[in-house]
Amino acid sequence: MGPARTAGHARPIGHTEGRGAVSAARRMVVVGGDAAGMSAAAQARRLLSADELEIIAFERGDDTSYSACGIPYWVAGDVEERDDLVARSPEEHRRRGLDVRTRTEVIALDPDRSRVRTRDAGGTEEWHGYDDLVIATGATPLRPPIPGIDAEGVYGVQDLADGEALRKAVSRLAPDGPGGEGGAGSPPRAVVIGAGYIGIEMAEAMVRRGFRVTLVDRAPEPMTTLDPDMGTLVREAMNAMGIETVMGRAVTEIETGEDGAVRAVRTADSRHPADLVVLGLGTSPRTALAEAAGLPLGESGGLLTDRAMQVRGHRHIWAGGDCVEVEHRLTGMTRHIPLGTHANKHGQIIGSNIAGEYATFPGVVGTAVSKVCELEIARSGLLEAEATEAGLQYVTVTVEATSRAGYYPGARPMHVKMLAERRTGRLLGAQIVGREVAAKRVDVVATALTAGMTVTDIVMLDLGYAPPFSPTYDPVQVAARKAAAAVRAAG
Amino acid sequence: MGPARTAGHARPIGHTEGRGAVSAARRMVVVGGDAAGMSAAAQARRLLSADELEIIAFERGDDTSYSACGIPYWVAGDVEERDDLVARSPEEHRRRGLDVRTRTEVIALDPDRSRVRTRDAGGTEEWHGYDDLVIATGATPLRPPIPGIDAEGVYGVQDLADGEALRKAVSRLAPDGPGGEGGAGSPPRAVVIGAGYIGIEMAEAMVRRGFRVTLVDRAPEPMTTLDPDMGTLVREAMNAMGIETVMGRAVTEIETGEDGAVRAVRTADSRHPADLVVLGLGTSPRTALAEAAGLPLGESGGLLTDRAMQVRGHRHIWAGGDCVEVEHRLTGMTRHIPLGTHANKHGQIIGSNIAGEYATFPGVVGTAVSKVCELEIARSGLLEAEATEAGLQYVTVTVEATSRAGYYPGARPMHVKMLAERRTGRLLGAQIVGREVAAKRVDVVATALTAGMTVTDIVMLDLGYAPPFSPTYDPVQVAARKAAAAVRAAG
Repeated sequence: MGPARTAGHARPIGHTEGRGAVSAARRMVVVGGDAAGMSAAAQARRLLSADELEIIAFERGDDTSYSACGIPYWVAGDVEERDDLVARSPEEHRRRGLDVRTRTEVIALDPDRSRVRTRDAGGTEEWHGYDDLVIATGATPLRPPIPGIDAEGVYGVQDLADGEALRKAVSRLAPDGPGGEGGAGSPPRAVVIGAGYIGIEMAEAMVRRGFRVTLVDRAPEPMTTLDPDMGTLVREAMNAMGIETVMGRAVTEIETGEDGAVRAVRTADSRHPADLVVLGLGTSPRTALAEAAGLPLGESGGLLTDRAMQVRGHRHIWAGGDCVEVEHRLTGMTRHIPLGTHANKHGQIIGSNIAGEYATFPGVVGTAVSKVCELEIARSGLLEAEATEAGLQYVTVTVEATSRAGYYPGARPMHVKMLAERRTGRLLGAQIVGREVAAKRVDVVATALTAGMTVTDIVMLDLGYAPPFSPTYDPVQVAARKAAAAVRAAG
Repeated sequence: MGPARTAGHARPIGHTEGRGAVSAARRMVVVGGDAAGMSAAAQARRLLSADELEIIAFERGDDTSYSACGIPYWVAGDVEERDDLVARSPEEHRRRGLDVRTRTEVIALDPDRSRVRTRDAGGTEEWHGYDDLVIATGATPLRPPIPGIDAEGVYGVQDLADGEALRKAVSRLAPDGPGGEGGAGSPPRAVVIGAGYIGIEMAEAMVRRGFRVTLVDRAPEPMTTLDPDMGTLVREAMNAMGIETVMGRAVTEIETGEDGAVRAVRTADSRHPADLVVLGLGTSPRTALAEAAGLPLGESGGLLTDRAMQVRGHRHIWAGGDCVEVEHRLTGMTRHIPLGTHANKHGQIIGSNIAGEYATFPGVVGTAVSKVCELEIARSGLLEAEATEAGLQYVTVTVEATSRAGYYPGARPMHVKMLAERRTGRLLGAQIVGREVAAKRVDVVATALTAGMTVTDIVMLDLGYAPPFSPTYDPVQVAARKAAAAVRAAG
């Protein structure tokens, strides 16, 4: 860990290196032009004029502020245009007074001299001094060293270029797509490797584009962000939708034909023909630059920050988004939880603080929602294994309840699993698997976890009730009521 | 207010009056067989056997545990059978060991001698002693002394008999109903008096049954449970659906024809032809018996209880549901808020306490959700007028946000108005008017109000985010973010 820099906004050495003019303004340099970085830049600009703060953002790709979370829906055809996924283009940012430089990669951080080194598309390298540095380098998709992983027909879904390539391949292969080849014969086949959020969202996308879909994961059940018993419900629902699941088996090879294109995905004891393979294996923090600069990293490789989103021990170096670890409010531990919602908050906080306001990030409670076709999946708080790891003793209950009054049309069953701390009855987490409207009910859980409520507190919450929206006790309350009884019984 | 009774379960005088046998068990007597009363009975029976506690419930009607909230959907045709609205019939309760006596009215309470007087369908009157008394007499629909209010064709929607009568009339008049008369000509006309929850839900029901609907209310905007500016949004949306709204005008007369049947509804300066009139004017607590017995009532006429749902100053007399006033957690004041969700909780608490467990009702935060056709309406916390009445100074903001990521199909706009306390930033309330999925988002508001969160706390909540479910900041957080800025600006 590097030494703490002194406070204050004195102009650091090297500030004007590589630039032709000396500006009177302080300078904020942002590394990475997606959610966290550009939120920080936009928030600082909202609070300070260009005369007060110069803002330069470096992005190695072409796009800024895009929704990677939207890629599955773009591939599925729910979203038509690439631009729909771009919340704000580089040009739009520039019009708001931000100096955005795309195709410009930051290749080194030099905290001691408060400068970063960049390389632009033409290969020109430069140093740029900063008063405040924002590291928002995001995450790298996991690509295990499986034979064939770089074959033609294997697609990632990390950025818009990935999404575009996959979308083109899908349109070529899918019977309903333009120029589709499979209309007369059997449907094209997709194998999705990884059964987490990205994997199941991509499975939905491929199903909806007319593919026969196989999902392969080494875990015993899909969605390891759920307890296995809840993962079982997800697998069963996916199977009922016609998605084949191959669980508990690691991919050993992506088989290719003589033309070099993908033919099948193999595990130790099975072979799954594929016209197309999608990698949905999760990500790890992209922090090689930070590591090289001696900045503090956590176990996952994510940057460690303080509550103000300043890199620990480094004043005026800030970090947010998918490249940091966040503190879990229930355990006090930090974890890598790459989500756009955290990234946006981090950026807002960083921008406010750089502009002289005061804002802090209170940590997360581990909320996530997803869907595969009509199945909605949500979690917040701790899984059983996470609670145990944190030294917490708990009871669990699982209930089946309905989304609306039982007699109201469209009432759908949902399963709610809840963890409550032994003795205290404090809520520790909940998982929901159901149909419309199931997933967003987890927001009550997230809010109650943040407030440190007990399950009895939850039973007594004054939640919205009317027959089209809920039974008299919301499903979350039905689970809480049973959990409260379990806490009493457990002693 | 009567003197406090002593604690303990000593058998009171008169316990066996009117009964043939002396039982060894304590006796719980319930007055009123709907949500609060039967929840109390069922909960007590869950915890104590018939040998430990005898439970008698008196209900003057035919039904127990029915959903009055479901009547609009029964009339609309969403629910087919009357029985669908009955959660548990008298016979089902009896099979669970409850002595349910329908068509038996309680005509007097005698707290001094711990007994109640009943009159059955045959006119026979009896005294029944109790160890614990549960008053769950519900509420009475308001029926202002308007000329013609008792005419043929004027319907209330308080109980299942009302619902059945209205449903029959609708089927007779509506073009699509069996034996409908209006198929060839113009649609039948319904006037709904009262533009609160019941009124708008009935307006939807009548629209969906093919009626031309006029909604009349003396208030300037519908839904006085919202601030007027949010009520305006509701009125505009209803008008766009073809529902005529006549606001700011009191009904002066229900005009009848020579046959005695309804012809029109009149205000001081307008006349609205009607084949059918629905009264949706709200309710007042049904507490004449309690008042005659000297039990304490609040301003609305609702019974006042302690946290354990015991009538204030009266041990072993409990009250819950639509006949009590509930404490508002944000103001400390008691109000009459008749809702099935409160009634169920009250019953559960009362049953637990009578059985020797310990449970309390923490009060409400004023949550309510409703819909009219596809418009969803929700509130929690305080309106502007309520905050002012409570001595609270506040800022308000209103935002328009979308239900899903903007690029995701089905993203619908919603308006969120939020009140935050001046200086502290404490959340005081929110109102939501939008389309699917808008209303249940208020549950986060309800939970945050219960926890005493500030609007900044809400901005930082770890709510569920994925494009099909939410923008990166949930609409409630978009409002909270603006509210936080308004609090800072207000100083």
